[in-house]
Amino acid sequence: MHPRFQYDLDGCAILGAIEAVGDGWTLKILREAIYGLRRFDDFARALGCGRGVLSDRLKKLTAAGLLERRAYAEPGQRPRAEYHLTDMGWDVVPALLALGQWRERWAPSAGGPAIRVTEPKSGRPAQVVLTADPKAAALSMEDVRIALGPGARRIG
Amino acid sequence: MHPRFQYDLDGCAILGAIEAVGDGWTLKILREAIYGLRRFDDFARALGCGRGVLSDRLKKLTAAGLLERRAYAEPGQRPRAEYHLTDMGWDVVPALLALGQWRERWAPSAGGPAIRVTEPKSGRPAQVVLTADPKAAALSMEDVRIALGPGARRIG
Repeated sequence: MHPRFQYDLDGCAILGAIEAVGDGWTLKILREAIYGLRRFDDFARALGCGRGVLSDRLKKLTAAGLLERRAYAEPGQRPRAEYHLTDMGWDVVPALLALGQWRERWAPSAGGPAIRVTEPKSGRPAQVVLTADPKAAALSMEDVRIALGPGARRIG
Repeated sequence: MHPRFQYDLDGCAILGAIEAVGDGWTLKILREAIYGLRRFDDFARALGCGRGVLSDRLKKLTAAGLLERRAYAEPGQRPRAEYHLTDMGWDVVPALLALGQWRERWAPSAGGPAIRVTEPKSGRPAQVVLTADPKAAALSMEDVRIALGPGARRIG
């Protein structure tokens, strides 16, 4: 028997994170939230998924504390909901950036990265790194700016 | 119209990564691979998923280059396959560690973290951080050691 089975690893935080956000549609919603989307119809359009699926994932992300519902109303229309990333939601973004960096290393986009993350204070690119360096200056998403990179192809 | 729709962002590496590994079972397989599992029956037991689902995800991870099939045979039995993380597979692990760190920050495990990642050379804990610090010493998974932490409850 593999020694792994001598342990109950159900309390593992990686598993907890997978249960919270480890689903294709959920991750795609978070990706679109990074790009600035907030509204149900915008998410539906960008993801191209069914409205039932989207509604389910937005509810779960809201219940889990990553998104916050806020009402808005266009003039003359009934109030609708926007979904804003909470502090907890923004805090998971570096993990998505890490996934993107991994992909960029092993299957570089033809046109270059679609987004660039920089620290405005220094003008330097921000990266997600594994480090044991206690002096490595860790940033939060509030400290960086996400801009479109050369791989974002203008169509409109 | 939200300005996001003026761009074709399908080349975005985050999306590419989601397509490659952004699925619950796939992420759970990678998590078990971090814990050292290699064999089909061990993955099936740890994940508690159907054999068809597991077979499908292992095939996809192998085709995508994250896992490598190697034959092994127990004495007197027919050869079977083990699935080993490739360099590309190990390289995605920091993104999973980042997910775990996020979870640990927002929903700390009662018994403490289930795993600890350390740099043997310095004895220091290794963390995934977002940084614009060009002097931050970035490690690869070869530079660190993963050990069980206090949250891994011994049952066997």
